[in-house]
Amino acid sequence: MEEKFVKEITPRSEDFAQWYVDVILKGELADYSPVRGCMVIRPYGYAIWENIQKLLDKRFKDTGHKNAYFPVFIPESLLKKEAEHVEGFAPEVAWVTHGGQEELAERIAVRPTSETIICSMYAKWIKSYRDLPVLINQWCNVVRWEKSTKPFLRTAEFLWQEGHTAHRTEEDAEEETLRMLEVYRDFVESELSIPVIKGRKSENEKFAGALRTYTIEALMSDGRALQAGTSHNLGQHFSKVFDIQFLDQDGQLKYVWQTSWGVSTRLIGAIIMTHGDDRGLKLPPKIAPIQVIIVPIFGQKKDLVLNKAKEIYELLKNEFRVELDDRDEYTPGWKFNEWEMKGVPIRLEIGPKDIENKQVVVVRRDTFEKNIVAEENAVEYIKNLLNDIQKNMFEQAQKFREENTRVALNFEELKNIIENYRGFVKAMWCGNGDCEKHIKEQTGATLRCIPFEQEKLSDKCVVCGKEAQKMVYFAKSY
Amino acid sequence: MEEKFVKEITPRSEDFAQWYVDVILKGELADYSPVRGCMVIRPYGYAIWENIQKLLDKRFKDTGHKNAYFPVFIPESLLKKEAEHVEGFAPEVAWVTHGGQEELAERIAVRPTSETIICSMYAKWIKSYRDLPVLINQWCNVVRWEKSTKPFLRTAEFLWQEGHTAHRTEEDAEEETLRMLEVYRDFVESELSIPVIKGRKSENEKFAGALRTYTIEALMSDGRALQAGTSHNLGQHFSKVFDIQFLDQDGQLKYVWQTSWGVSTRLIGAIIMTHGDDRGLKLPPKIAPIQVIIVPIFGQKKDLVLNKAKEIYELLKNEFRVELDDRDEYTPGWKFNEWEMKGVPIRLEIGPKDIENKQVVVVRRDTFEKNIVAEENAVEYIKNLLNDIQKNMFEQAQKFREENTRVALNFEELKNIIENYRGFVKAMWCGNGDCEKHIKEQTGATLRCIPFEQEKLSDKCVVCGKEAQKMVYFAKSY
Repeated sequence: MEEKFVKEITPRSEDFAQWYVDVILKGELADYSPVRGCMVIRPYGYAIWENIQKLLDKRFKDTGHKNAYFPVFIPESLLKKEAEHVEGFAPEVAWVTHGGQEELAERIAVRPTSETIICSMYAKWIKSYRDLPVLINQWCNVVRWEKSTKPFLRTAEFLWQEGHTAHRTEEDAEEETLRMLEVYRDFVESELSIPVIKGRKSENEKFAGALRTYTIEALMSDGRALQAGTSHNLGQHFSKVFDIQFLDQDGQLKYVWQTSWGVSTRLIGAIIMTHGDDRGLKLPPKIAPIQVIIVPIFGQKKDLVLNKAKEIYELLKNEFRVELDDRDEYTPGWKFNEWEMKGVPIRLEIGPKDIENKQVVVVRRDTFEKNIVAEENAVEYIKNLLNDIQKNMFEQAQKFREENTRVALNFEELKNIIENYRGFVKAMWCGNGDCEKHIKEQTGATLRCIPFEQEKLSDKCVVCGKEAQKMVYFAKSY
Repeated sequence: MEEKFVKEITPRSEDFAQWYVDVILKGELADYSPVRGCMVIRPYGYAIWENIQKLLDKRFKDTGHKNAYFPVFIPESLLKKEAEHVEGFAPEVAWVTHGGQEELAERIAVRPTSETIICSMYAKWIKSYRDLPVLINQWCNVVRWEKSTKPFLRTAEFLWQEGHTAHRTEEDAEEETLRMLEVYRDFVESELSIPVIKGRKSENEKFAGALRTYTIEALMSDGRALQAGTSHNLGQHFSKVFDIQFLDQDGQLKYVWQTSWGVSTRLIGAIIMTHGDDRGLKLPPKIAPIQVIIVPIFGQKKDLVLNKAKEIYELLKNEFRVELDDRDEYTPGWKFNEWEMKGVPIRLEIGPKDIENKQVVVVRRDTFEKNIVAEENAVEYIKNLLNDIQKNMFEQAQKFREENTRVALNFEELKNIIENYRGFVKAMWCGNGDCEKHIKEQTGATLRCIPFEQEKLSDKCVVCGKEAQKMVYFAKSY
C-alpha cells in the first residue's frame, strides 16, 4: 500500500478566495478549461447540479410549469428591440459572425438570457385569453462575456433555468413573480440549508427591462452577500415591444403581463461558501451526490471486512446515495480526509472489532461527532441523522448570519461595519438612488434588497438624513 | 360552445414532407424560430425529449457512466488538432469572433461535438491506469451550420447526449463501443418501438476522426433510412494528438483508447416518421407525455359527468401520465381529433350512460379499437393495454420494414428498387469505396451499414462483380 499525500487546502482565515478555489479543484467539482472564463463541471460537481435540477424541476411542475427549449442564438435586431434590456446585456454578449466559410448578413448573439427570443415566439402563440397563462421554463446554458471570472460564481458560460410566463392581468403576473420567489426561498432553505432574505431590488439593481426585481440574498461565510435567485415582474415592457397581444373576454385586444425568474450553477458556489470549512466541502444531505461513504478498515482481516462492508452497502443502497471505498492503494486515514474534503455528510467505518460486536461506526461531517450504532439499527439511524445534519447545517448558517448582521444608524457606522466586519448592514434609506450610489462609491457595498420583513430602525436615511422610506440591507457582494 | 375547425394534416401519400411538418407544427411539438435553421421545441415536444432523457440516462448510469459539463466554446486551435476531425466539421462551424465590444485574438467555435475540448481535459486528468476507465456523458446543445434544415432531423442547433470514454486497452474500448451501441438498440426498440439494424459504417461514412463507427439504422414509413444513433471507437487518434497518456501497471507510458457515442433530438423525428399516420402522431406509451386522455361527454348532465371524470382522473394519476380535457369551448369530436393528432395512446370517454353502467369507454390510438371496460377494472386494463400498444407498434414497424427490405443481386436490380420502391436494399459488396460512391452517384442511396447479422446472397459485389466481402444495406436516407 502506497500512502499518498493528503491534498492540502488553504485555510479560510489565510486566504478565503484561494480556499474556495482549492475546494473546487481538489474536491473535483470543476476545473479550468482552455477557453477563457469557461469552466468544466466535473462529474462530482455536476451530480450536485443534477440533484438541484431534479428537486427544483419538481417544484416548477407542481406549480403548473412546463419545460421547453428555445434557440441558443438571438439575432442582433431581436436583442436590440427592448432598449433597457440591450443596454444591460450588450457589453457582455459573445457574437457569432461566421457560419462555416460565410460571413453572416446579421450578427447573432449567443443568448445571455432568453426574454427576446421567447417573446418573439409568444407573439405567435398567444391569441386569446384562453391561451393564458403561459407557464414555461427552460434549462440551458447562457453566455455572458465577463471580464473577471470565478468558478460557479461568475463564468463566461453557465448553466441555469429561466422561467418565462405570460399573464392576463398585472395582478396575475405579480402573483406569479412572488410565487416563484417563494419556491426559490423554500428550495434554497430546505434543500441547500442556506438561509436567505426575501426582498425587492432597488431601481439601480433591478434586471435590465424589468418593472420590479425580487431577490433572495444569502450571506457567505466570508461576510459577503450572494444573490441566490431572482424573480422579475416584467410588466408590459416586452409585450409592447414584441407585440404580444391577446383578445380578452371583453372583446378588447390587450398586451400580456410577463415574468421571468432564474437560478444558476452559482448555487453550487453558494453551497461551498456557506457551509465549507478548513477541511473542505460540507454538503447538505438532500443534494449530496454521496450521502454515506463506507470506509472499510481491513486490519488483518481483509476478506471478512470487505464482505461485511459489501453487505452493508447492499443494505443501504436502496435507501441512500451510498458508496463503498474499497480501494487498496489508499489508507483509511487518507480516505477519511478525502471524503471529508468532498463534503460527504456521513462516514461509516467498519473494522474487525465492529464485525465482532455487530456494529458500525458513524461519523457526521458537520460536527465530527462519532457514534457506535448496532448494525441492525443502521438504516433507521442514518435516516434520522441525515435529517439532523440537514437541519443543523441550516441552523449553523442562520446563526452565522445573525451574528454578522449589524445595524447602522448613520453613514460612519455603516462604513465602519463594512470595512471592519463585512456581513449584512441593516440601515434606513430614503429611496434615492444617489444615496445608494454614494454608499457603493465610498464603501464598495451595494443595496442587496429592500426586505419584505421591515423594521423601523430610525426615521432618517443613513446617508442624507432625510425622511427614511424603507429599511434595507447593504453588503459587499459576489 | 363554439365549434372550432379541426386542424388539417396533409395526407402522407400526397406529400410526406408536408405531412411531417404539419404533424410537428399542428401537434405543437416544435415551431420555426426567427433564427435561420433553429427550431423551438415546444412543451409537448420537449416532454417527449425529457422522457427519452430520463430513460436513457438511467441506462447510462446503470452501465457506470457519470454526467459532466464541458464548455460550449472550443478555441479554433484546439478544434484543428485532429486533422480528419476538423476537415469533417469545419464547413459547418458557427464562429464567435467578438466578446462584447472586443474582437477576440482567436476565433472560437460553438461546439459541433466535444471530442477536442474533452480530450484537452482528459490529458490533465488521466495519469495512471488506476484513473481508467473514464466514463463520462454530457447532455447539451450543439451547433452545425447546415445549409438545408428540417425540424428534429437536421437543425443548426440540436440537443443531444455525447458519451466520451477513455480505456486502458484496445479491447476495452471496443467492448465499450459495442456496449453502448447495444444500449441504444435496446432503448430504441423497447422504449420507442422502432426496430433497428445494428452494424458498422463504411470508411466513407464513418465519423471524422474515428477508427470505426457503429450505427443503428431505422426505416421511416416513406421508405427512407434514418441513422438513429452512433457509437465510435476512436482508437488512439485523439489520444496521440492530445497527448493523453497514462502510466500502466507495467511501468510503461501508454496512450489511452477512446470511444464516443451519441443520440439526439433526431429520435423525435424518427418516432414521428416511423409511427405517424394520416391522423397525425402516434406515440409509444413509454415516452408519451400523456398516456391517457380523459374526454368527458357531458350530454345533459355536465356536473355529474365532470365529477365522475375527475374521480377517474384521480384514480389513474398515480399510475399513468393522464390528463383530463374538461375544456368547455370544444366539442368531444374536436377533442378526439386533437388528441389523436397529438398521438396520445389511449382515449378514455365517459358519458351519462357510462356512469349509469359503472363503465368507461377505452379507445386505442394504434388500432382505433374501442372497448367498454368496467370502471373497477380500468387501472388494470389500461396497464395491460399500454403494454399491448407498445408491443403492437413495434410489430407494425417491423412488419413494414420486412415488407420494404429487398435483395438486389446486380446493379440494375438495386437501381430499380431504389427508384421504384425505396426501402432497404440488401446487397453484396466488395468493400471498395468506389463501388459505394458509384451507387450514391447513380441512385442517391448510401451504404447505411455493414450489419452484424450477415447473409450470403451471392459471391459477387453488386457493382463491380468482383469477390464480395460483406452483405450490406443501401437506402436513401435522411
